[in-house]
Amino acid sequence: MIDPVELGPFPGDEGYEAAAQLDQADPLADYAAAFVEGEPDLIYLDGNSLGRPPRATAARINDLLAEEWAGRLIRSWPEKWWTQADRIGGLIAELIGADPARVIVADSTSIVLFKLTLGALQARPERSRVITDDLNFPTDNYITDSAARLAGCSVETVGSDGINGPVDSIIAALDDDTALLTLSHVLFKSGYLYDMERLTAAAHDVGALVLWDLSHSVGAVPIDLQGCNADLAVGCTYKYLNGGPGSPAFLYVSEAVAGEVANPVTGWWGHANPFAFELDYTAAPSIHSFQTGTMPILSLAATEPGVRMTIEAGIDSIRKKSLGLSSYFIELAQRRLTPLGFALASPLDPARRGSHVSLRHPEGWPIVQAMVEDGKVIPDFREPDNIRFGMAPLYTSYLDLHSSVGRIARIVESERHRHYPSERSVIT
Amino acid sequence: MIDPVELGPFPGDEGYEAAAQLDQADPLADYAAAFVEGEPDLIYLDGNSLGRPPRATAARINDLLAEEWAGRLIRSWPEKWWTQADRIGGLIAELIGADPARVIVADSTSIVLFKLTLGALQARPERSRVITDDLNFPTDNYITDSAARLAGCSVETVGSDGINGPVDSIIAALDDDTALLTLSHVLFKSGYLYDMERLTAAAHDVGALVLWDLSHSVGAVPIDLQGCNADLAVGCTYKYLNGGPGSPAFLYVSEAVAGEVANPVTGWWGHANPFAFELDYTAAPSIHSFQTGTMPILSLAATEPGVRMTIEAGIDSIRKKSLGLSSYFIELAQRRLTPLGFALASPLDPARRGSHVSLRHPEGWPIVQAMVEDGKVIPDFREPDNIRFGMAPLYTSYLDLHSSVGRIARIVESERHRHYPSERSVIT
Repeated sequence: MIDPVELGPFPGDEGYEAAAQLDQADPLADYAAAFVEGEPDLIYLDGNSLGRPPRATAARINDLLAEEWAGRLIRSWPEKWWTQADRIGGLIAELIGADPARVIVADSTSIVLFKLTLGALQARPERSRVITDDLNFPTDNYITDSAARLAGCSVETVGSDGINGPVDSIIAALDDDTALLTLSHVLFKSGYLYDMERLTAAAHDVGALVLWDLSHSVGAVPIDLQGCNADLAVGCTYKYLNGGPGSPAFLYVSEAVAGEVANPVTGWWGHANPFAFELDYTAAPSIHSFQTGTMPILSLAATEPGVRMTIEAGIDSIRKKSLGLSSYFIELAQRRLTPLGFALASPLDPARRGSHVSLRHPEGWPIVQAMVEDGKVIPDFREPDNIRFGMAPLYTSYLDLHSSVGRIARIVESERHRHYPSERSVIT
Repeated sequence: MIDPVELGPFPGDEGYEAAAQLDQADPLADYAAAFVEGEPDLIYLDGNSLGRPPRATAARINDLLAEEWAGRLIRSWPEKWWTQADRIGGLIAELIGADPARVIVADSTSIVLFKLTLGALQARPERSRVITDDLNFPTDNYITDSAARLAGCSVETVGSDGINGPVDSIIAALDDDTALLTLSHVLFKSGYLYDMERLTAAAHDVGALVLWDLSHSVGAVPIDLQGCNADLAVGCTYKYLNGGPGSPAFLYVSEAVAGEVANPVTGWWGHANPFAFELDYTAAPSIHSFQTGTMPILSLAATEPGVRMTIEAGIDSIRKKSLGLSSYFIELAQRRLTPLGFALASPLDPARRGSHVSLRHPEGWPIVQAMVEDGKVIPDFREPDNIRFGMAPLYTSYLDLHSSVGRIARIVESERHRHYPSERSVIT
């Protein structure tokens, strides 16, 4: 019989007072109460994968079900739903330094990646190379491959050290046969944050287009697409924007490339006049041309409260707290968890860090299981040994981090994780 | 000052007693109470465009928001959400004569059409023609064009008489250079129902593949994909399946062609082992390989109550009532509305009729506006002069139809529609 893991708080542990003081001084502290309460004692550090539900979301969805769907029925299409993707895209634009008219919510991240990648390659038909890195999110690589195959291009996946974006090698790989550079702004494993301005400029120097995946940065890191002259971007709304499981993606096409990059998957939602039901396709003269099929309105509507809350809190305040949380966490983890076999797998330099921190441990998977089941700390895990700790500044507190480190240390010290399988059974 | 339109019922009007008796004898009559009540006096005849919300849907969504998202957070992915699209696809399979393992919910209708069309053309690389008709839903034509462009194929759009599928011309157009025949099972304007078995056999005779769009038939017309040897199918869940605005689509790939038709848009949701985060794509050894990106879980979950209700009611009973409703409506409209300038624009033969009926009228658009605003009858309108009346057997009654015809007759007789603009302003 093993003693249960203590769930804290741990006022006797090193750094407790400092954490409590940081929480007291936190100007965003009140936002935690704007989210639906979850399981008691649970500490959720996976907002970088699936954000928590804002309280306002259930109200919005119930209104949609009762008033808009049941009440107004089909009339809600012209009255409300048809422009919703444009309207919410316009709100997201505020978070990514874009003209509201150049952003729209659409499909899933993978599908919008496909549309923009293929559209970019078709805009550079005389070029045959696509550059990406081996730390990109896998679906980005799979989609890049499928679009490149259709366009007759080859993909070069630049190798990295496993943590940092291989900036110099990417710049060296760019040449006048490069059609597109496609990267994640923040890398999903290590949280490394690319210098968007520098890499965009390097790609433009050789005449290539650039596509940024903002999934792991939007809502946590200030982004200035226009300031960086970015051409194309996509992103996800269910991580730091708290839009709900699988909520739709968004996309950005700059004014500068709008004339040359077109949506290759032409469906009626991108038509200039969809309700004329014409036999021939005419693209809408706006970002709406990057739509394809009917949007899932429940999931689309659920994205709005989280986006609004992020705008209200202010992305600069969010970034400031994010770096405060991650720096505090790294410092504490290095003192308390490094002696237990953990190693930092994220950039130490705050300027190159997104809003999650990875720790590696040879027994990472059993430790994660014990953390979730016994320790009531939810991080996430990425093969082979990465434990990711996501800091969502709107609801993560310094004491959450302090308590998490205390629980993890107690699990490993008591060898509690040895009761869990080391082999991972992956859902297929 | 014009008198308001009478909203009925109209016991004095011809056919009232017959309608009341048909309702009393209707074995599906109780299902109407399983839907959320809408506006009083409103008669909704647009279930062929957007179905009404089942009462069970709000309960399911609230459970998802509170228990699954807020409560279990990221843990709901392995516990519930990851297999939801396969599970609901398996339910839909019962309605379309398919092996449950060969159907999955995914994306939007337009996106799944793109994936299956391009996949089919890549499976017949030595052929260069695609055949469709000019009565297909416009997005089907736009998408067919975009996939054909990528595959280097040409599209032949067979002309029709505007109401009936041009069966003989299609069969004459099929040749040994035809890669794919792509058709809507029920045509969106006229409600014409194709003979799936005959056309599939004709395409197979020349070695072509067939893709059926079931959007306007699923949930209203019995479908036997396996019995007809159909290769590929897609469909929509927000019409007769009552899945909610923009709820995701479904797709079917037959066992016979599963080895040759692959998903050309390879994203992580179609990977054999998505959570291994491998750099290279390996397709799942199942219908899951036709997934691409993360599914919108709220909109996906909302599809289940309507699908279950349809299975429970029984598709044969639904079809029987559907034909009862449409035959009754046509008979009444011919007696009461033809003298007022309306003309039937749907097949008279019940064997060739889906579950909606179109009437044309030179003043169709002003009449529709008066019907909606004053008559509280909601049909829909398709350019240039088609008024579509959708019969959703789970909630449409014979008295709804009787009363609708009475209201429309009173509108036209009183010339009330002349107060509405004849020009349509279409949203762009």
